[in-house]
Amino acid sequence: MHAARRVLEAALPEPPAFVDLDAGFELFQRTGVALPDETVQELKSRCSCALFGAVSSPSHKVAGYSSPIVALRKRMDLFANVRPVASPAGGSGRPIDMLIIRENTECLYVKSERIETDPVTGERTAWADRKISERASRRIARIAFDMAIQRGKLRAAADSSVPQLHPKPKVTVVHKSNVLSVTDGLFRESALAVYNDPLLGFKDAVVLEEQLVDSMVYRMFREPHAFDVAVAPNLYGDIISDGAAALVGSLGVVASANVGDSFVIGEPVHGSAPDIAGKGVANPVAAIRSAALMLEYLGDAHTAARIYAAVDRVLASQPNALTPDLGGSGTTQSVTEAVLRGL
Amino acid sequence: MHAARRVLEAALPEPPAFVDLDAGFELFQRTGVALPDETVQELKSRCSCALFGAVSSPSHKVAGYSSPIVALRKRMDLFANVRPVASPAGGSGRPIDMLIIRENTECLYVKSERIETDPVTGERTAWADRKISERASRRIARIAFDMAIQRGKLRAAADSSVPQLHPKPKVTVVHKSNVLSVTDGLFRESALAVYNDPLLGFKDAVVLEEQLVDSMVYRMFREPHAFDVAVAPNLYGDIISDGAAALVGSLGVVASANVGDSFVIGEPVHGSAPDIAGKGVANPVAAIRSAALMLEYLGDAHTAARIYAAVDRVLASQPNALTPDLGGSGTTQSVTEAVLRGL
Ligand SMILES: CC(C)[C@H](C(=O)O)[C@@H](O)C(=O)O
Ligand SMILES: CC(C)[C@H](C(=O)O)[C@@H](O)C(=O)O
Repeated sequence: MHAARRVLEAALPEPPAFVDLDAGFELFQRTGVALPDETVQELKSRCSCALFGAVSSPSHKVAGYSSPIVALRKRMDLFANVRPVASPAGGSGRPIDMLIIRENTECLYVKSERIETDPVTGERTAWADRKISERASRRIARIAFDMAIQRGKLRAAADSSVPQLHPKPKVTVVHKSNVLSVTDGLFRESALAVYNDPLLGFKDAVVLEEQLVDSMVYRMFREPHAFDVAVAPNLYGDIISDGAAALVGSLGVVASANVGDSFVIGEPVHGSAPDIAGKGVANPVAAIRSAALMLEYLGDAHTAARIYAAVDRVLASQPNALTPDLGGSGTTQSVTEAVLRGL
Repeated sequence: MHAARRVLEAALPEPPAFVDLDAGFELFQRTGVALPDETVQELKSRCSCALFGAVSSPSHKVAGYSSPIVALRKRMDLFANVRPVASPAGGSGRPIDMLIIRENTECLYVKSERIETDPVTGERTAWADRKISERASRRIARIAFDMAIQRGKLRAAADSSVPQLHPKPKVTVVHKSNVLSVTDGLFRESALAVYNDPLLGFKDAVVLEEQLVDSMVYRMFREPHAFDVAVAPNLYGDIISDGAAALVGSLGVVASANVGDSFVIGEPVHGSAPDIAGKGVANPVAAIRSAALMLEYLGDAHTAARIYAAVDRVLASQPNALTPDLGGSGTTQSVTEAVLRGL
């Protein structure tokens, strides 16, 4: 996060004001609260956006603990999780340029779970509710179609000598409605209704494709260049974005933004990587790109583009200077300095 | 399926008796029933095992239709779905040799779904139940540990000049208990309890590892050779096995077996591939290997091994003779003949 902050300070015309707010498992261990009310209140009252640092989460059940980012997404109604996954410019092989749009508030992430114990055998059975609403599904589909069109325009405006990966914007709707015909059926049906709505005009501008989530993971690895925008319910989106990250070298470069109607939280897709904590070699690229993505969704596409370009230059031209996850011998600090110089 | 049948006829010492039983979407379209009761009754009364051919399923909701393989797994209590994924012997790169054990009866596959309409807005919300029981989780974990040990023994008995991929058997438990602390928490806890049970003796013989499902997909693509046996709840198992298939060249080579206490159904992992239907170029390897896997779980490891070896020889030595999904110009029939010759 420190790297992202320095880059924002250097890149923005006016130095932004920062507030440090607490959340996470370490805080929970000290205080019993993972996401304090003050954090949410401060965000709502004093901030226009936020960056969320990678937190560690216990893999085992800890009574009372619950992931603060999942709670924040819901409490701030950040209904879209936007995850661009692109191979570095100038790399070898066919380029990858995907945008994953993950529904961010429902599915199994409503975290409505319960456990029952059989009075006779004493054996336990646990249940979770999966929620898919028409409203959230339409809303996320609409964002996906809008963004596909916007990406198409940017590509058309860019250097036309570069062969176009996606001649016409394409949206892949990911679901598993062959098994979950009601919930994923509703997700699918809502996306199709938005697509076919003549008032919205998506049908002529965008190619629509569907993919069952299992086949999606398969195809992503067989022909990743075939995807443009993919839209998915929450859990599928979580899984496919980690999969897509594997295609572009490292989770350490993949950014995300949690986007709502009036707030954005930038968040690197990676976790806290306890194996390298404190060694100073964590890749700052995901955090820096998440800061840029945050600016983009705040409307400052210009500064965002400058940051992206500086990062891309470092990734493309200084392989040895990158952090160990990308095969280099650089550090968090040296990569950050290189990005700052390139701004 | 025809290919698998021919191979079984040629490989088994006694020619087996076959019964053709109906199921699937085409049957549903003709008769309104996807899985006739007679099919289940015949299986239970007259058969010792079965092969399930790839069926097409509609991606949209068709009133009354429901996937016959999902229903069969439940009605025959085939609680384990076993999916070996290995790179061809003698291939380049570090070899992959994974066995995915997918829980086969619960999770979101209980297909308990409902839809509500808001009386004021008219908007719909759909719900699905996800079930994770201690009993099914313990049962599937136990199978995973048992199979890891068995694989370890086979490796030890095999040519020791080959460097060992997994010096000690390893089981990776896949879950998402950082979000689903109750359901995936119970899956995880049950697997750990089986592992730590001194009466079962797994702890000294097997290395246990945990992986969140999103990271699992990431790691599978970054270091697939690191996995030995992976065990997962139903839906995660579905997704990671398609992902693993992408690592070994084609879904057209990946077999599975649906295993219960007293019945086995072999089933290729791939679907019906409508794009190549009727062209005679569908890869028969997944179906042939599924037949061998079925024999293996019936106790005839010897015939199974002969079939596997014949398939491996064709895959390794005749690249041009393979089907188009593997880059060759062979046909279903020519590949089948090659396997038959190699038996
Ligand atoms: C940390 C975890 C709760 C989170 C999620 O599952 O959403 C993470 O995996 C992510 O992708 O942002
Ligand atoms: C066809 C479908 C219902 C099935 C599943 O999801 O289990 C398939 O994808 C599989 O992996 O066997």
